[in-house]
Amino acid sequence: MSTLQASAQNQLRQFVEQIERLEEEKKQLASDIRDKYTEAKSVGFDVKALRQIVRLRKKSNEERQEEESILEVYMHALGMLDTVPDTSVVDKMMAAE
Amino acid sequence: MSTLQASAQNQLRQFVEQIERLEEEKKQLASDIRDKYTEAKSVGFDVKALRQIVRLRKKSNEERQEEESILEVYMHALGMLDTVPDTSVVDKMMAAE
Amino acid sequence: MSTLQASAQNQLRQFVEQIERLEEEKKQLASDIRDKYTEAKSVGFDVKALRQIVRLRKKSNEERQEEESILEVYMHALGMLDTVPDTSVVDKMMAAE
Amino acid sequence: MSTLQASAQNQLRQFVEQIERLEEEKKQLASDIRDKYTEAKSVGFDVKALRQIVRLRKKSNEERQEEESILEVYMHALGMLDTVPDTSVVDKMMAAE
Repeated sequence: MSTLQASAQNQLRQFVEQIERLEEEKKQLASDIRDKYTEAKSVGFDVKALRQIVRLRKKSNEERQEEESILEVYMHALGMLDTVPDTSVVDKMMAAE
Repeated sequence: MSTLQASAQNQLRQFVEQIERLEEEKKQLASDIRDKYTEAKSVGFDVKALRQIVRLRKKSNEERQEEESILEVYMHALGMLDTVPDTSVVDKMMAAE
Repeated sequence: MSTLQASAQNQLRQFVEQIERLEEEKKQLASDIRDKYTEAKSVGFDVKALRQIVRLRKKSNEERQEEESILEVYMHALGMLDTVPDTSVVDKMMAAE
Repeated sequence: MSTLQASAQNQLRQFVEQIERLEEEKKQLASDIRDKYTEAKSVGFDVKALRQIVRLRKKSNEERQEEESILEVYMHALGMLDTVPDTSVVDKMMAAE
C-alpha cells in the first residue's frame, strides 16, 4: 500500500498543525521583542547596550566579573587597555604561560 | 551627573524586564516545538520530512510547483534525474541559455 | 602580578592575529560565493534552485531518493500531492501508524 | 523542449562546481579557526575571552569606549555595577529621560 493509513494521516496532520501554531506564536513573540527594542530606541535608549544588558543579566555576578577580568588581562596584554587589570582573577591566567 | 535620572532608570528597568519575559516565553515555545518533533519521532514519523512539510506549507501550491519544476530541469541537466522534467515551467528556464 | 608574562603575551598576540587572518580569508570566500550566485542570476539562472542543487549534491542518490519518497507520502497524506507516491519506500512509513 | 540547451547545461555545471569548491575552502577555514581556538585552550587561554578580543578588535578604540561607557551607565542604573560610571559619555544618555 503506497499511502499512510487514515489514523497515521490524522496523526501527521495533528502534529503539523500543532507545530504550525507554536511556530506562529514564536514568530509573534520575536516581533514583539523587536517592537520593544524599537520603542526603547524611540525614547532614546541605546539598543546595542540594551541587548548587551539582557545578555549579561543571564549570567551571575561572579561569572560576569570573572569574564570581565580575564578579558581585561588580555586587552592589557594586547595594548587595548591603558589601566593595569585587577589582580584578583589573574591567577587563572597563570596557566596561559 | 554620571547616572540616569530616576525616571529613566525605571523606564530602562521596565524595558529590560519586559524583553526578558518575552524572551522567556519564546524560549519555552522553542522547547515545545522541539518536544513536538520528538513526540512525532517516537511514534515513527520522519522528523526531517516533517520539518520539510512545515516549510513547504508556508508556500502556495503554484510557488511550490514552479520551484520543483525548475529544480527538476537543473537536476536533469546535471544528470541527477533520470526522467525528463515537465515542460510547462521550462520557458522560464530559457533565459538561462 | 596583574599582567601576562611576555611569553604569554606574544603567544596570545600570535593566536589573535592567526585567527584574524583565517577569518578574513573566510569572509572573502563568503563574498566570492555570493558573487558567484549573483553572476549566475545575471545570466538567467534561478538562485534558489541553484542553492538547492548545491545542497542536494551533498547527499547520495539513495539518501536523496529516500527523503523524497517519504516526503511524497506525507504530502499525499496531507492533500499536497495529487499523484500516489512510489511504494518502494513506504514500508519505513508503516511504523507511523 | 523540456531540458536546458547544452551551453546552458555546461554553464550551470560550471557554476555549481565553482560554488562547491569555494564552499569546501570555506568549510576548511572554519575548521582551521576551530583548531586555533582548541590549540589556544590547550595552552591555557580562555576561549570565550579570546573570541571577545577578536570581536572587539574589529571596532575602533573610540567605538569600543563609547559602547563600554553607555553599558556601564545602564548597568549602574540597574544595580549591576557598584562604581559610578565615567561621565564623559553620559551626555548621550540624557536623551533617555
